[in-house]
Amino acid sequence: MTATKTNPGNFFEDFTVGQVIEHATPRTITEGDRALYGALYPTRFAIPSSQAFAASVGLDPHPVEDLVAFHVAFGKTVPDVSLNAVANLGYAECRFHRPVTPGDTLRTSSEVIGLKQNSNGRTGVVYVRSTATNQRGEVALEWCRWVMVHKRDASAPAPETVLPELAPAVAAADLVVPEGLDFSSYDFAAAGEPHRFGDYEVGETIDHVDGVTLTDAEHMMATRLWQNTAKVHFNVEARPDGNRLVYGGHVISLARALSFNGLANAQLVAAINAGSHVAPAFAGDTVYAWSEVLDKAELGESVGALRLRLVATKSREEAASRTLRGEDGKYAPGVLLDLDLWALIPR
Amino acid sequence: MTATKTNPGNFFEDFTVGQVIEHATPRTITEGDRALYGALYPTRFAIPSSQAFAASVGLDPHPVEDLVAFHVAFGKTVPDVSLNAVANLGYAECRFHRPVTPGDTLRTSSEVIGLKQNSNGRTGVVYVRSTATNQRGEVALEWCRWVMVHKRDASAPAPETVLPELAPAVAAADLVVPEGLDFSSYDFAAAGEPHRFGDYEVGETIDHVDGVTLTDAEHMMATRLWQNTAKVHFNVEARPDGNRLVYGGHVISLARALSFNGLANAQLVAAINAGSHVAPAFAGDTVYAWSEVLDKAELGESVGALRLRLVATKSREEAASRTLRGEDGKYAPGVLLDLDLWALIPR
Amino acid sequence: MTATKTNPGNFFEDFTVGQVIEHATPRTITEGDRALYGALYPTRFAIPSSQAFAASVGLDPHPVEDLVAFHVAFGKTVPDVSLNAVANLGYAECRFHRPVTPGDTLRTSSEVIGLKQNSNGRTGVVYVRSTATNQRGEVALEWCRWVMVHKRDASAPAPETVLPELAPAVAAADLVVPEGLDFSSYDFAAAGEPHRFGDYEVGETIDHVDGVTLTDAEHMMATRLWQNTAKVHFNVEARPDGNRLVYGGHVISLARALSFNGLANAQLVAAINAGSHVAPAFAGDTVYAWSEVLDKAELGESVGALRLRLVATKSREEAASRTLRGEDGKYAPGVLLDLDLWALIPR
Repeated sequence: MTATKTNPGNFFEDFTVGQVIEHATPRTITEGDRALYGALYPTRFAIPSSQAFAASVGLDPHPVEDLVAFHVAFGKTVPDVSLNAVANLGYAECRFHRPVTPGDTLRTSSEVIGLKQNSNGRTGVVYVRSTATNQRGEVALEWCRWVMVHKRDASAPAPETVLPELAPAVAAADLVVPEGLDFSSYDFAAAGEPHRFGDYEVGETIDHVDGVTLTDAEHMMATRLWQNTAKVHFNVEARPDGNRLVYGGHVISLARALSFNGLANAQLVAAINAGSHVAPAFAGDTVYAWSEVLDKAELGESVGALRLRLVATKSREEAASRTLRGEDGKYAPGVLLDLDLWALIPR
Repeated sequence: MTATKTNPGNFFEDFTVGQVIEHATPRTITEGDRALYGALYPTRFAIPSSQAFAASVGLDPHPVEDLVAFHVAFGKTVPDVSLNAVANLGYAECRFHRPVTPGDTLRTSSEVIGLKQNSNGRTGVVYVRSTATNQRGEVALEWCRWVMVHKRDASAPAPETVLPELAPAVAAADLVVPEGLDFSSYDFAAAGEPHRFGDYEVGETIDHVDGVTLTDAEHMMATRLWQNTAKVHFNVEARPDGNRLVYGGHVISLARALSFNGLANAQLVAAINAGSHVAPAFAGDTVYAWSEVLDKAELGESVGALRLRLVATKSREEAASRTLRGEDGKYAPGVLLDLDLWALIPR
Repeated sequence: MTATKTNPGNFFEDFTVGQVIEHATPRTITEGDRALYGALYPTRFAIPSSQAFAASVGLDPHPVEDLVAFHVAFGKTVPDVSLNAVANLGYAECRFHRPVTPGDTLRTSSEVIGLKQNSNGRTGVVYVRSTATNQRGEVALEWCRWVMVHKRDASAPAPETVLPELAPAVAAADLVVPEGLDFSSYDFAAAGEPHRFGDYEVGETIDHVDGVTLTDAEHMMATRLWQNTAKVHFNVEARPDGNRLVYGGHVISLARALSFNGLANAQLVAAINAGSHVAPAFAGDTVYAWSEVLDKAELGESVGALRLRLVATKSREEAASRTLRGEDGKYAPGVLLDLDLWALIPR
């Protein structure tokens, strides 16, 4: 009787292509989330930092960081999609449709868009497209991700393989500029750096210089805030090495916050094109970040977009040298995260 | 002169039966408390999580977790009641009268309802009934507790022993259903589990599965948030073993949050019937929880109540086996908390 | 190209007397800041704790702790003034002009008011007067500080030495009583102590008794909350000893919060006259505090001011003995902070 009451999570054979999962525990965003985000990450982007600055670029009420919305929306999917995950394999086609502001309540639903059993017969890859909506039913953000999930029963038959077609990157034409956003009277002094759209060149790399040493208390608080329930983040008995694995999203937020130093005007995340959690991070590791400009696009009179590779490393040298891969094509030692995103910046 | 300015706390001989203490530092609850509670405990109950969900069951404005109110109200009593406590011995007759929402300011007063000097002559037990009221003078919650307190002077005469009559449990008829609460259009999918009142049977036990490893930073932040000033929680020099003792309420909140997995619809705490902090907890301990259904009551058309034993352990085996006591009748090793509460759940 | 995008901070030769720096990243204060402040420091002052109490003394809307405003305003100056600082040498003439309430957005600007190259030719002292204003352009607070800063190039010529005239203490006549503040119906029971202005004597000292052991997670969260970017607080690789240096302001807030026990009615900080961070603090240190009444002033019918020396120590004995300096005139071992401030208290 007991076993039926608790959530064992879904196993590979529980997923079918076309299935739609309405994830539980809608969550209201508050000013408390903004403050905690600022306590946990060294973020200084002027829009989420200042109500007055946000209003001056047409964003009123005052949006929280885009990644707050991402983490909250993502966290909803964990109990249903990745509680039995071996690994979070990738992201694609993540688009932010509208800013999230305190008082908004987010819900997430996911559609299974692909399945592929692994040749070992014990695991499979599940592809889902998730959509987070606010209390008015408007889409706040959507994304695809794929995870490797355990089978409950290795002898269960393999489903037909369905691989979704996913764009290698969100096309610039598909990026959403938030309604009302107008950078024409943007205050560069208040924002912290003078560099605008035209100052960045494709191929340019930026060492974000600063590093942050991780603690267990901080990554657990962050991960709980997003109602992410994956055991490995909280319980030293859940992993053979006795370490608490840092939630990959914690490293994303840390790297994004560090990128302020050199990309202070890349104010809003418009899309995440792809992402790999290359290596695990643990308390005691010191995280650095660097960026590469991959592409540029003009989205309006005052708004441009930079496509950026954002790399987190746990070595100062790796960040300073901006080495992504070794000569063998593999990720260089020390690389933690390789994230590909579009950010909006004043022209 | 100095000694007169700081608060030495009350000793056993400072209490008299019938005495009423107005505790200091009223405290306004905010959305920041909700966010911090969610960062410190893995709570996902849909009512405190979502303003929209709460409104859909008739609770508007958006209440915080009942235990936020409990901890804040309880914290007020510490400087006057338990600063010189040897041990917090028990709770009884705790009832939640109305939800607390951001903007509410809580004050607490306590009446001494019992006294009993211990045979050693150096300590005694003080029984108090505490009542927390909001800024409109409405009762938010009330509870009794008894603590063992040092005497200032062992030679002081013993007071007459007065033992209050305390109910072994709050009678179902005395439970307060919050005004407006209506579970008739309750969204079980959004809440996270399908189990309703009728799905639980008296005697049933539930292993809540997940565990959380404690850190000092987190329990200190929680305890401070409630303005609980007991030295042993904050100062490594306050205990011979050099550990910071985790506030018992931290374990209560952790266990309650873990109980979501299996009791997701036991949304509101209506009463705490009894509670024992069986063993101390420290940073590095991993806390698990299990529950037993002790009783059931129908409170209205759409609302039922489950009387639950909520047990926290620092051993996975203890939680998995749901062993409360050994053959000798003593608490099993690894048991941290034995709490008896009523929770409201949709019928 | 990279080097031009990130902020290297200013070096000694980048400053000129009369230069005005508009610091970046305006920051909106929220209820989340209040909650986090209460989680990070054991504060119980009734005005910031309770909206109802604050309103009862004429402060409506509900102000946050004065030190929240100080830390946020101060943090803005770090990237421009002290990123390359060797040491934060002193404070003077800090005055709080009006309470800061949630919704206020603070900006800070600084004027260079003094310069003096050190005889070693490698460093110099920069004096700045900083002013924080709210979204209505009203001054919230102002202060002077001086820091020792590295030269970029030791061979650069020394500037003309200019030493500002700074008051040894803010004159009582220059203290600002917040508009509307009226202590005439002050509720001493709610505030936690009966001691009013007339109960304190110049020369009196108060041992605040309690101690708090520091953790890395807590001081990093606090320091990030104020958007203070100094590397030494966050990165174990930034110091040869592998420790994260606790932000001096963290010790100030801790000592101020501990001072509640004996100075509960010293509700508002009106000025900081001077301050020395005497020794570094690290995780594991246990911080205690004591105060000395240096001066008193009557500011109005119901409002008095106490000039207080607030001393933080990392030894219980130092706090209990209230020894500031040894016979050699040097600070006693264990002293962390020597702060001179004015606080407002009911007459």
